[in-house]
Amino acid sequence: MERDGTSGISVGELGERGVLARVLAELGPAERASLGPGDDCAVLAVDGELVVTSDTMIEGPDFRLAWHDGFALGWKLAATNLSDVAAMGARPTALTVALAVPHETPVSFLAQIAEGLDAACRALAPGCGVVGGDLGRAPVVSAAVTALGELGGRDAVTRSGARAGDVIAYAGELGLAGLGLSLLFAESADPDGTAHARGVPALWERHPEALAAQLAPAPPIPLGTAAARAGARAMMDVSDSLSIDAERMARASGIAIALESALLETAFGSQDGAEVPLAAMLTGGEDHGLLAAFPPEIELPVGFHRIGEALALPVPPPAGGAATLLLDGARLEPRGWDPFTVRLPGA
Amino acid sequence: MERDGTSGISVGELGERGVLARVLAELGPAERASLGPGDDCAVLAVDGELVVTSDTMIEGPDFRLAWHDGFALGWKLAATNLSDVAAMGARPTALTVALAVPHETPVSFLAQIAEGLDAACRALAPGCGVVGGDLGRAPVVSAAVTALGELGGRDAVTRSGARAGDVIAYAGELGLAGLGLSLLFAESADPDGTAHARGVPALWERHPEALAAQLAPAPPIPLGTAAARAGARAMMDVSDSLSIDAERMARASGIAIALESALLETAFGSQDGAEVPLAAMLTGGEDHGLLAAFPPEIELPVGFHRIGEALALPVPPPAGGAATLLLDGARLEPRGWDPFTVRLPGA
Repeated sequence: MERDGTSGISVGELGERGVLARVLAELGPAERASLGPGDDCAVLAVDGELVVTSDTMIEGPDFRLAWHDGFALGWKLAATNLSDVAAMGARPTALTVALAVPHETPVSFLAQIAEGLDAACRALAPGCGVVGGDLGRAPVVSAAVTALGELGGRDAVTRSGARAGDVIAYAGELGLAGLGLSLLFAESADPDGTAHARGVPALWERHPEALAAQLAPAPPIPLGTAAARAGARAMMDVSDSLSIDAERMARASGIAIALESALLETAFGSQDGAEVPLAAMLTGGEDHGLLAAFPPEIELPVGFHRIGEALALPVPPPAGGAATLLLDGARLEPRGWDPFTVRLPGA
Repeated sequence: MERDGTSGISVGELGERGVLARVLAELGPAERASLGPGDDCAVLAVDGELVVTSDTMIEGPDFRLAWHDGFALGWKLAATNLSDVAAMGARPTALTVALAVPHETPVSFLAQIAEGLDAACRALAPGCGVVGGDLGRAPVVSAAVTALGELGGRDAVTRSGARAGDVIAYAGELGLAGLGLSLLFAESADPDGTAHARGVPALWERHPEALAAQLAPAPPIPLGTAAARAGARAMMDVSDSLSIDAERMARASGIAIALESALLETAFGSQDGAEVPLAAMLTGGEDHGLLAAFPPEIELPVGFHRIGEALALPVPPPAGGAATLLLDGARLEPRGWDPFTVRLPGA
């Protein structure tokens, strides 16, 4: 992104009202909204109970402008929040977006973010759209998205409903996003970890799947309601890593989750033509696929792959006792992403 | 706020999970939530249509830690969003909060923010509570709040429904918050505008009303549904200034708004014992009271004060023609707050 104004007028030059008009022009309607942006609130119809989730992405720790253009950033903001809605078994209906940016940010960059948000809604969750938001000033690009969805009369699928004997299944890309981040740090960052854009075009050429998964992920949103209808007992979005989030589901449900490497490798060893090692699947993070527990007698919805099973506690030897996460029968230590304890170069 | 760790453990030391546990302990339940924080989404019941709004507050342009402690910041975050919900004629039911803070921020500061959010919900909008959120890293304290409310079967009151002949009325504090900001810049900031905490206790002693209005405002949230039930035709939250927001309502409704200084001075010249000049009422900003248009035959709900009337366009001479905002019959230029064009010292 250019912030020097050569690529166009900045938000500081145009002022809030003008920027909003430019940004709103990029946004299509949301099917369930009877009133969209422009008033104090948007107004939405809701069928059944409502689900709601919020997420922040901050330039530096969460993304780097050398790698992300505005469109990809908007797309990723939408996709990562839509997947939280899908993980409850709900249908996403609306997003609100609070953006705060430096004074010198080009207005065109904000318009690209809006385009990316809108395109992701149309592609991943048709009928959903941006219904409102806010624009402010910050020292770095800061975005907070809230996603809303409706349950259509069904109960929400939480992370705490898995029972011993359930099939553990996963839908979506797995490990690719983490590989993409590793590749970007290896080939598009200075030795001190500062991101630059020089290596990015070559990486897109050589590793399009991993870069797309990292920069503009496409989680399987409609599979959230499909899993709920099929009878999923527990479900969650895998954002920090499969091992961390499977362990969370196990603890919340009071069971252990036993993953099988053979199942993981068969289903996810090759994704869109890219080879993905087992370690990347377990620890990569930012996958935003759906991890679910289904009763064993249920046929998995198309798109879900069996990757293990739920065991009663305590787990028998050799893993034994209080282990809540296993791989091929041995205790597995969860590893992945914590924004406050993981020290990323350049962050 | 101390960020050097002497006042306690930092978020970087404790890690995301520990911080969340500490913060969630401060939050009471929301009446309409069947599932609160801890899963991918919260789950809410909704009576009638849903209203939703988002707002960001960033350290620097929007608040200064020398003036705001965590509790006041949390309180203001809640209050300013609740007033947007009230302005639609809706009852606030839930907030989500996305916070991003520097690594070295004390965990106790985040716990105070949560306490302030919770206390404001209980005081201003009983039954409403924080149902979810997100915690991330940022170079400065960055907060985005989304507020949800329900219309209980009524239509939303927008800013575009005022008609010629309507009574224009206002409820809440007016001009005090802007006075508070001016006092803080005059007595608790260095000559270059950098905020410091030294003058703050003396200001609280001498100008408690203005400081409270600026740092921890208490908008009249229940008057939103009261106005809707009474038949308000248009309503909005006054956030940028009475003159700016009245002009917005006039434009959206296709009428002119004629304010009367005598009515403003009678109703708002002395608030909680503080003298408020007319200029502060018109241009102060951050009032978060409710501006509404009522049909002339309706008795105003208690708490609303008549401040003017809606006129048909074009406005007759001497103001004449396309003027959409008048004071005592003369054209009034809207003035107030735009985060990108107003250059505050220290921002």
